[in-house]
Amino acid sequence: MAGILLLLALAVFPGAVQGLWPMPRSITSGTTALKLSPGFYIQASAVNPPQADLLAAVAQTELYLRTDNMQRLVLGRGAYDMSVVQSASTLPSLTLSLEPGATAESISTEAVKALGSRSEGYSLTVPSDGSAATLTANSTLGLFRGLTTFSQMWYEYDGQIYTISAPYDIVDSPAYPFRGFMLDTARNYFPVSDIYRTLDAMSWVKINTFHWHITDSQSFPLIVAEYPELAQYGAYSSSDVYTPTDIQNIVSYAAARGIDVLLEIDTPGHTASIADSHPEYVACNQATPWGDFANEPPAGQLRFTDPAVRNFTTSLLSSVAKTLPSTMFSTGGDELNINCYTQDNQTQAELISTGLTLEEALSAFTQQTHGSLIAEGKTPVVWEEMVLDHNVTLANDTIVMVWISSADAASVADKGFRLVQAPSDYFYLDCGGGGWVGDNPAGNSWCDPFKTWQRAYTYDPLANLTAAQIPLVLGGEQLLWTEQSSPTNLDPIVWPRAAASAEVFWTATSPGGGALNVTEALPRLHDIRFRMVQRGVNAIVLQPLWCALRPDACDINA
Amino acid sequence: MAGILLLLALAVFPGAVQGLWPMPRSITSGTTALKLSPGFYIQASAVNPPQADLLAAVAQTELYLRTDNMQRLVLGRGAYDMSVVQSASTLPSLTLSLEPGATAESISTEAVKALGSRSEGYSLTVPSDGSAATLTANSTLGLFRGLTTFSQMWYEYDGQIYTISAPYDIVDSPAYPFRGFMLDTARNYFPVSDIYRTLDAMSWVKINTFHWHITDSQSFPLIVAEYPELAQYGAYSSSDVYTPTDIQNIVSYAAARGIDVLLEIDTPGHTASIADSHPEYVACNQATPWGDFANEPPAGQLRFTDPAVRNFTTSLLSSVAKTLPSTMFSTGGDELNINCYTQDNQTQAELISTGLTLEEALSAFTQQTHGSLIAEGKTPVVWEEMVLDHNVTLANDTIVMVWISSADAASVADKGFRLVQAPSDYFYLDCGGGGWVGDNPAGNSWCDPFKTWQRAYTYDPLANLTAAQIPLVLGGEQLLWTEQSSPTNLDPIVWPRAAASAEVFWTATSPGGGALNVTEALPRLHDIRFRMVQRGVNAIVLQPLWCALRPDACDINA
Repeated sequence: MAGILLLLALAVFPGAVQGLWPMPRSITSGTTALKLSPGFYIQASAVNPPQADLLAAVAQTELYLRTDNMQRLVLGRGAYDMSVVQSASTLPSLTLSLEPGATAESISTEAVKALGSRSEGYSLTVPSDGSAATLTANSTLGLFRGLTTFSQMWYEYDGQIYTISAPYDIVDSPAYPFRGFMLDTARNYFPVSDIYRTLDAMSWVKINTFHWHITDSQSFPLIVAEYPELAQYGAYSSSDVYTPTDIQNIVSYAAARGIDVLLEIDTPGHTASIADSHPEYVACNQATPWGDFANEPPAGQLRFTDPAVRNFTTSLLSSVAKTLPSTMFSTGGDELNINCYTQDNQTQAELISTGLTLEEALSAFTQQTHGSLIAEGKTPVVWEEMVLDHNVTLANDTIVMVWISSADAASVADKGFRLVQAPSDYFYLDCGGGGWVGDNPAGNSWCDPFKTWQRAYTYDPLANLTAAQIPLVLGGEQLLWTEQSSPTNLDPIVWPRAAASAEVFWTATSPGGGALNVTEALPRLHDIRFRMVQRGVNAIVLQPLWCALRPDACDINA
Repeated sequence: MAGILLLLALAVFPGAVQGLWPMPRSITSGTTALKLSPGFYIQASAVNPPQADLLAAVAQTELYLRTDNMQRLVLGRGAYDMSVVQSASTLPSLTLSLEPGATAESISTEAVKALGSRSEGYSLTVPSDGSAATLTANSTLGLFRGLTTFSQMWYEYDGQIYTISAPYDIVDSPAYPFRGFMLDTARNYFPVSDIYRTLDAMSWVKINTFHWHITDSQSFPLIVAEYPELAQYGAYSSSDVYTPTDIQNIVSYAAARGIDVLLEIDTPGHTASIADSHPEYVACNQATPWGDFANEPPAGQLRFTDPAVRNFTTSLLSSVAKTLPSTMFSTGGDELNINCYTQDNQTQAELISTGLTLEEALSAFTQQTHGSLIAEGKTPVVWEEMVLDHNVTLANDTIVMVWISSADAASVADKGFRLVQAPSDYFYLDCGGGGWVGDNPAGNSWCDPFKTWQRAYTYDPLANLTAAQIPLVLGGEQLLWTEQSSPTNLDPIVWPRAAASAEVFWTATSPGGGALNVTEALPRLHDIRFRMVQRGVNAIVLQPLWCALRPDACDINA
């Protein structure tokens, strides 16, 4: 019956649930108008003991309801709805409560629990008859997800805040535990305020992991208390840094919004910036031609055969990791250039003296760095080459990120590792902007073409996997490498595209059980895009407004 | 000798003239540091009678000098230069004057004169010994161009505003009279403030024509005093409009910055929005499937066989044109869909009753609309199809815009028409963002790939033309069609890419006479990009900052 009600709603009002992103996994909605009472409030007093971050989320939700000023995307906009809204019932309040037996902890505590042990589900009921709405969950994190959904239901016109799709009955929880967005802050630097704004937008689409690629060969903006020289010499400037306080503020800001921060210090490759303070630790530092030593300039990789480098790296990673609440930490491990080590006299001498092969030494290095992270209670995360190109001994629960190609997921699964889907051929947000290396007039992006939201949205996270391998897929993320990005284009290059994977990994299939499809999704993606703009995020427009107001009129065969 | 001095400068300080864009056509510069006096001022009193817009430009230049806060893009940034700056001479002033015999008129008057009759050249001398700098020109417009160059010479560090490249001796004038940028404000709307900011950025790189594609099938934001119903029903909303006052303000703002506004009201195609108020004037209005009737949704074209439509269009165009100071006005003329008229009963009946072919009727329509524009003193501008696909009788001095392919320029020149280079395969800024029509998961941009600045920069405006045809090339422009653009991404999708053609059509060849080359250009393009950001334009970053600080280190074979 629920399904029939939804279908009716979609038939009568094509935009009936157009505001919701990601689409809840189970939803019925109606065709009745309902408006917020001028005195509308969200009641969280049943959550005991009170949680400061939940109360802040309640206040933020009430603020969004009052300030989104989001006119519905329909011909005639808000005015079109006023005839039914005038006579609509009024919603007095939304009441939050935890399920019987649930213990109230902060959102921030819940958000950083180990993958698989978080509770993000919720039930949300919005009656159409003027009785109170209710939101229940097993955790404050679930309540936060429900508040996010609730805030997407409402439009504004002429002082009225209303929906035309009451009643709502939603039972929702994510299909995958890892739904991420990766930002590279090393190719170009992003001030803390840009990261806050990005975390807000992530939370609006229920992304729960901020994969922070914080350092790379170009710069080392991370101030590490024990190793201040790394940023002092490796950052672009004394102001292009993240202080320990910045890191804690960002981690707290994220956690209060249901987001775990997965920090990555990429090793042993992508580390030329470490040579700015420790030249003795880095092989082929800024060696030329760079193309012989690295995938992009500047070349430079840690001399992992050197015991001093192993000890330094181990100490560096655990020094940072121990300050972070997440159960995950990434040591990177992508794009190791073997020639760099073949040409490095010190590395070759150390291999001869130890009798190890380069691969054996890499495995020893990784075991030492990972060992210290594991001792700090962290689960190591690596890029796919660590298991596909190198024979590194890794803990069984190591998480592997697939990036080179979507086709590699099956290979990683064949090795028995849990994996995160981050394939460049679907999820790289930076592709298609032309080549950025100099002296190359005809050069295009290495991962041309541009990865559209449609392409990301049609990604099948389980393609080519056996039934037994399916549980290995933790989720996925879209990624922004920032050779050609900085604060000036951050919002439009990321949003709303990064919302595509947020729905792929939350909703996974349509509430009716069918595959996700771009034609159903487009009106809702328009909606969340316009809402993001209303909230101060400069998300790019997807079509002429003419099309956004007329679902399907601009379809290719319309 | 001049050439040798420049080469020396480049060898000693690779970034010596890195701030100048477009590169002056004749320049010598040195390697001496020079700083602005704290009391530095620009003296324009020799320009008589005083011109208000020149005085405003002087004040704006003084403001940029004091507020750009632009650190030089070099390793160590501004601190690197301080040793030579401390002991440098101090520049007390810049004195502006007109050449003997020149008459002082306003920049705004000069900027809208007919192509070929404007004087944009100037001579600028900045001694290194502490004597005053001088700027002379034949017109206030030339003085304005010189002020723009002067403002790009200076960097700031620790309170010092300085150059390291004095003395400068520049004699400059543009290679081509038409250097444009086109913005489409019909697919999505742009507030007046966005247009002001864009005009500012255009003026910084000496672009002198704002080609304003103001209406299209999706919306009609232009309020025409005589036909208010067009915007009343055809604009996206009552606030997504340009009032007559807005138009005058924009035209004035542009002219004071040396920019002529070439307004385009596209006819007879791309006019579905006219049907919102005049359905009787439009054939195949919103007909489906749209692909049978138009290149993009919605379909809709003026019934040019109808005398009422001819009279309406003629009156509309001249009503608007007569309010504008430019000598040019575009009637569009691209992408006419013949099937739309074949299927239109009214059009077919009118052709039968008049005995005209469709092409003959199109020619009659165009002669009538152009005739009234010519009577208003305007030179008509059309897209290339009007001469290549249709046999329309046009005035000999009609200006033709080449857009479909760079290969079409020679065909237009063969017909003897003056032309503007606006080829999609080099100059379309919107390509490469993925397909935007709905229900098309694998769709990419029709003009993939992304047109990089490098591609635009290496465009040869004279390719495949005979020596006799070369004078027909008036210049060129880069263009932003806005199906996938709006205020949220305007700056990063346009800038600094649109600066590429600005230099192609101003400088044309290197000051030494060789071809422009991307490797020489990149450090200067970085510089103007960072300066744009300092002035509030969110230009996209081109490379990691690591590369921007190290010219050539990120070249493909470096």
